[in-house]
Amino acid sequence: MPDASPTKWHLAHTAWFFEAVVLSSHDPGYEPFDQRFFHLFNSYYESLGPRHPRPHRGLLTRPSHDEVMAYRGHVDRAMLRFMETADDETWAHSCTLVELGLNHEEQHQELILTDILHAFSCNPLLPAYSTAYLAADSPASTLAHAAPDAPSLRLVHGKPGIDWVSHPGGIVNVGHAGEGFAFDNETPRHKALLAPYLIADRLVNCGEYAAFIADGGYERASLWLSDGWAAVQAGGWKAPIYWIAPGDPRAPSDEWQVFGLAGVRPLDHASPVTQLSFYEACAYALWAGARLPTEFEWEAALSAPEHGRVTQMTGHAWQWTRSSYDPYPGFKPNPGAVAEYNGKFMVSQLVLRGGSSATPHGHTRATYRNFFPPATRWQFSGVRLAKDAAC
Amino acid sequence: MPDASPTKWHLAHTAWFFEAVVLSSHDPGYEPFDQRFFHLFNSYYESLGPRHPRPHRGLLTRPSHDEVMAYRGHVDRAMLRFMETADDETWAHSCTLVELGLNHEEQHQELILTDILHAFSCNPLLPAYSTAYLAADSPASTLAHAAPDAPSLRLVHGKPGIDWVSHPGGIVNVGHAGEGFAFDNETPRHKALLAPYLIADRLVNCGEYAAFIADGGYERASLWLSDGWAAVQAGGWKAPIYWIAPGDPRAPSDEWQVFGLAGVRPLDHASPVTQLSFYEACAYALWAGARLPTEFEWEAALSAPEHGRVTQMTGHAWQWTRSSYDPYPGFKPNPGAVAEYNGKFMVSQLVLRGGSSATPHGHTRATYRNFFPPATRWQFSGVRLAKDAAC
Amino acid sequence: MPDASPTKWHLAHTAWFFEAVVLSSHDPGYEPFDQRFFHLFNSYYESLGPRHPRPHRGLLTRPSHDEVMAYRGHVDRAMLRFMETADDETWAHSCTLVELGLNHEEQHQELILTDILHAFSCNPLLPAYSTAYLAADSPASTLAHAAPDAPSLRLVHGKPGIDWVSHPGGIVNVGHAGEGFAFDNETPRHKALLAPYLIADRLVNCGEYAAFIADGGYERASLWLSDGWAAVQAGGWKAPIYWIAPGDPRAPSDEWQVFGLAGVRPLDHASPVTQLSFYEACAYALWAGARLPTEFEWEAALSAPEHGRVTQMTGHAWQWTRSSYDPYPGFKPNPGAVAEYNGKFMVSQLVLRGGSSATPHGHTRATYRNFFPPATRWQFSGVRLAKDAAC
Amino acid sequence: MPDASPTKWHLAHTAWFFEAVVLSSHDPGYEPFDQRFFHLFNSYYESLGPRHPRPHRGLLTRPSHDEVMAYRGHVDRAMLRFMETADDETWAHSCTLVELGLNHEEQHQELILTDILHAFSCNPLLPAYSTAYLAADSPASTLAHAAPDAPSLRLVHGKPGIDWVSHPGGIVNVGHAGEGFAFDNETPRHKALLAPYLIADRLVNCGEYAAFIADGGYERASLWLSDGWAAVQAGGWKAPIYWIAPGDPRAPSDEWQVFGLAGVRPLDHASPVTQLSFYEACAYALWAGARLPTEFEWEAALSAPEHGRVTQMTGHAWQWTRSSYDPYPGFKPNPGAVAEYNGKFMVSQLVLRGGSSATPHGHTRATYRNFFPPATRWQFSGVRLAKDAAC
Repeated sequence: MPDASPTKWHLAHTAWFFEAVVLSSHDPGYEPFDQRFFHLFNSYYESLGPRHPRPHRGLLTRPSHDEVMAYRGHVDRAMLRFMETADDETWAHSCTLVELGLNHEEQHQELILTDILHAFSCNPLLPAYSTAYLAADSPASTLAHAAPDAPSLRLVHGKPGIDWVSHPGGIVNVGHAGEGFAFDNETPRHKALLAPYLIADRLVNCGEYAAFIADGGYERASLWLSDGWAAVQAGGWKAPIYWIAPGDPRAPSDEWQVFGLAGVRPLDHASPVTQLSFYEACAYALWAGARLPTEFEWEAALSAPEHGRVTQMTGHAWQWTRSSYDPYPGFKPNPGAVAEYNGKFMVSQLVLRGGSSATPHGHTRATYRNFFPPATRWQFSGVRLAKDAAC
Repeated sequence: MPDASPTKWHLAHTAWFFEAVVLSSHDPGYEPFDQRFFHLFNSYYESLGPRHPRPHRGLLTRPSHDEVMAYRGHVDRAMLRFMETADDETWAHSCTLVELGLNHEEQHQELILTDILHAFSCNPLLPAYSTAYLAADSPASTLAHAAPDAPSLRLVHGKPGIDWVSHPGGIVNVGHAGEGFAFDNETPRHKALLAPYLIADRLVNCGEYAAFIADGGYERASLWLSDGWAAVQAGGWKAPIYWIAPGDPRAPSDEWQVFGLAGVRPLDHASPVTQLSFYEACAYALWAGARLPTEFEWEAALSAPEHGRVTQMTGHAWQWTRSSYDPYPGFKPNPGAVAEYNGKFMVSQLVLRGGSSATPHGHTRATYRNFFPPATRWQFSGVRLAKDAAC
Repeated sequence: MPDASPTKWHLAHTAWFFEAVVLSSHDPGYEPFDQRFFHLFNSYYESLGPRHPRPHRGLLTRPSHDEVMAYRGHVDRAMLRFMETADDETWAHSCTLVELGLNHEEQHQELILTDILHAFSCNPLLPAYSTAYLAADSPASTLAHAAPDAPSLRLVHGKPGIDWVSHPGGIVNVGHAGEGFAFDNETPRHKALLAPYLIADRLVNCGEYAAFIADGGYERASLWLSDGWAAVQAGGWKAPIYWIAPGDPRAPSDEWQVFGLAGVRPLDHASPVTQLSFYEACAYALWAGARLPTEFEWEAALSAPEHGRVTQMTGHAWQWTRSSYDPYPGFKPNPGAVAEYNGKFMVSQLVLRGGSSATPHGHTRATYRNFFPPATRWQFSGVRLAKDAAC
Repeated sequence: MPDASPTKWHLAHTAWFFEAVVLSSHDPGYEPFDQRFFHLFNSYYESLGPRHPRPHRGLLTRPSHDEVMAYRGHVDRAMLRFMETADDETWAHSCTLVELGLNHEEQHQELILTDILHAFSCNPLLPAYSTAYLAADSPASTLAHAAPDAPSLRLVHGKPGIDWVSHPGGIVNVGHAGEGFAFDNETPRHKALLAPYLIADRLVNCGEYAAFIADGGYERASLWLSDGWAAVQAGGWKAPIYWIAPGDPRAPSDEWQVFGLAGVRPLDHASPVTQLSFYEACAYALWAGARLPTEFEWEAALSAPEHGRVTQMTGHAWQWTRSSYDPYPGFKPNPGAVAEYNGKFMVSQLVLRGGSSATPHGHTRATYRNFFPPATRWQFSGVRLAKDAAC
């Protein structure tokens, strides 16, 4: 798939980021590992020169894995030296870039998992990535880098029914301000006006989504956005991309199964459904008599526990919102080359909120804005429902 | 081009709309002209059965123009009879559909012009559609169906500089309510919260846009959204689609020229620039040190003349806004088949406000939401600038 | 379809040919009708300057039909004048070009019919082109321009069984020499060595082809060339392109029907099957325990009636041969611009021999080499079987 | 590139061939290594069940290289056991399949090299595969598996001028018969009739090809086949695919260079030009006032040293012929699954004769027919010229 990249590329690209954004500009003594890697591992920074085309990344048999690891070692050592020796003024100019580089690497940690899962899903053998993902109820809790997120973001077990948390609307504060790292697309913090609404206290689960399929969800044009219906027909969609129908010769069974990092597993009705496109999320919501929340409704619900407790806000699935990825009022991109980090993608994408089982712990936050095109199906992306409050 | 349709198809499709939406459902005595036209002239109504694929419309050499005009006559006569004879209850159920059909036909009147212009632009002869478009300063004023719009919407002559109208922001009312026709996507009327902003009192003109080109606007990646830059490179964009560079063999000249409904004309510096994509509009705005207005900023500026007079709000070019085409809070599609009219397109498109020289007079209004994908270049679409107020 | 052109284009292009190849070069007094038509109606002559891209031909709404007919009249009058007034030397240089222009126009007469038929086949109304094609057993006999071909080329009625005509092989003479017009690709006449073979005395008919379909012909990979099987799967081929399966909503029937110039007709078992691709012709032949003849086997069979009488050699369907379209030994293209007429297409195409019901009478001959890519399905192209002689 | 495969795939596929064609059918005691590899490593045998799509081969991260080598070991051991223990009747049925498997593996040895070279050429680092290819004048002589071919096939050093060997034509015998292995597409041996011709005694070299480029070879439509010219324009061809123009930032130099298995090297004027498409070969020949030989002219020249000595017939480049890849008279595919080996590709391809520096020694022979589509540029394919004899 042209949107996915090999692991080796991710490993080199995240080192490249530190080299290109921090070391080249702020460390006069830095010696590059190999000048040519600048071109090779640039992802999309036009201001940093020509790039290797994304669809060709899979062809990069050279440099080898060992060379890439040597490159990472070189950059890591240079970064440690730089952080120890930079004078105050240099550090003042570069510390936010270092922090950005760390967050950038965390984003790619998740992409490595989603890209591996996609590559494995194209393999008729359907290999398992790691049985570690089987060891507990919560996949996230088993990750080596696990650390507690804020309680309201924590994953809890699914429960049979949905409770609707009622929010009165009105003027709310959204976006990031103050201490702590955030991407530029989360700023500036500003006021937004919401109508009263209801939001589901948990994610839609696989059992509910299976009922949608059984009810002809993928065969009824009236449930779908026009582009979504075109995607259903062009792609022959009949279920989420990694669901395996009964009778599939790759993994014979009489029941629905789901392919994931732990390999092929029986469908678990209580688990949140993931790997949905925005189109599927919208169609499901319409079928269920609801809609998706806007990104501000999602953020306000998380920030106001006094109106009711929402769960599964992170740790299992990014949650599609009914908000296009537009700039916030007063948005200013980061200065310099990293101006290209977020702002130039603000069209034809949808905002996802929360975090998934593949997101490094501590990476996400209440104001975090993830984004993907509406047809994207290979991310850990699911659905939380919302409704207008009766008035 | 797959997005454009031949005039004959538009003529038949607008008759089809009355047949499919009004006559078939509400007039039990209606006899269809030809059962097969139902399939042939359906544009995108999944609930009304299979459709003829859009890219094949150009191949419809049959029915002939005469047959299509006979079909229109048949439907017109049936509609007149229906409107005279329908009982009160039937009329109560169908009158909004009749009004919708009239507005639908007005939309296609504009599309006929934009599609003809596109077909002519692909012809090396660059033929003129009508010299009527030359007769006055304002193209719109020469149209046979011209009738006065509200003063604040009226086209005025361009003036040398831009004045910035300052709006204090705060809570404003947007969207349609009350008497008069509106599409469902303009409803419900609701409150929105705006930050203080400045908005240009006129459109960007061709002279200003020529300066952007001369300054390397199409060659500087940093001015463009990522998808926009990809479109520039893939399509070899160097100017608006109908601009003709000096030396073009199709229309030799030493100066820039512009192809339009009146044929090839010298570039008029004071005329609003049109046929821009959203990508071009955004790149221009960034180059000019400004941004596009949101759709609510646009609507509030028009509705609050006490803050300053904005001109050229309609009559020359639809104006790209920095608002994705998302549903309004509490949006409900029209009931029945016409639910598909607007709602199912609410993804991956941008809102345009105003109206163009090709828009039938009286068709548009302050709350009107036109929408197209961001790469669209064959509409009468231009730019009005906005800025954050200094605070 | 990108390979088909509108009738208006064919009408102008055939006039253009006389203008470009004869009048512009050999008649110093010739005044062009419109300089710009040179570009517009050039099909593929690189040496005659830039061309209008083929897939855009359908968009040429201007010049109008009336203008094209005026253009034809202008060129016709100039040609008549030229032929009356040219001096002997001029005529010596140009008379073969005039003859080429006439044969070129005859080729386009057939293409007009095949392109109209294709456009109509994309129209859900499946309109009939002319009921004249119904009036007799032999479609060809009803054409206004009908005139007798040589007896051995004449169409005869199909008969139930196939008789195999046996040819002893050996050295035969093939290709054109001597008096009369021929295209350069038919020359030089030369000797070829054939092994003994059998050739069918008539074409494969629709009834036989229906048996192939009923026997799973389109579902058995082992019958197909690799590219052919890929085409079957990518295109969803299940029958010849204009065959209409029982139950097709466009023309309800319980039986197979065939769409043609006379509209939708019941399948006639005794009629030669047409509109086959080379892939379908090869698959059928393999299924039938035979193969296609080479182009020299075909020509030798026609030229040696003493070995047995072959019928239906022209008048209904061009006949795919198992010969790639390679140059003859010693082949020299025509001199000048018309060097591009045939030679530059000699790769990735297959030779067809004979002539069809849409071929103007007198146009074809025993040495005539028609050619199309192997996936071509919109021509009047059928199958004659051959076999190796047992030895 | 969809036509190239990773080395791991080639390694597994050649083992698969022995498993699928020999062991599964002829060794009742054979236990497969992994049932699922049957699907995974099938290349194009429809009769042997579903296949993994070729463009997805690059995604096969599993099985790992170690697993593939274990698979090869398993099959090798089973084959040794089978060959030692098979009874006479079994062996009589399977020995030609074993020989076919060995030749199949040799074909993939060459493809491994061409595919690696292509992957490396897409890498901006342009890595060298092996400096062994630098060690001698003749690349082939350095290969570990080198062994002497017949003298007339042996590579000799280029010499300044071309000598034309004259062949009188007449009836010649072509194709394979008798002892020794050959593919089915080389049979049956049969007579062919040739006109008198001249054939070059060596291959076209890089210096000559550079003169073609310098003379505008890639800019003159009149030199190219129509499809070839379209490829030149669509692909922006300006030189052979692995030639590196002066100033290319990937390998700065003021001179032309050539990328190959030994990395980037200065252009060697005396070396045969390789990695040409058929289109380039034809255009060069026309520019040089010559043509390509037919496959029978090539074979006859090699088989009749009494008419003059031709050199470089193998060991450096496969030689495009002006013969489409059609079946020989009386051609019968191999029986069973291996019927698909050659016959089903006999359309839209051209025959190459000879052998290249990447061809295993002893693999090729005078009657060998290699074949590729005309646009193929990543093989070791070059040009030998021919001419019609003056008569």
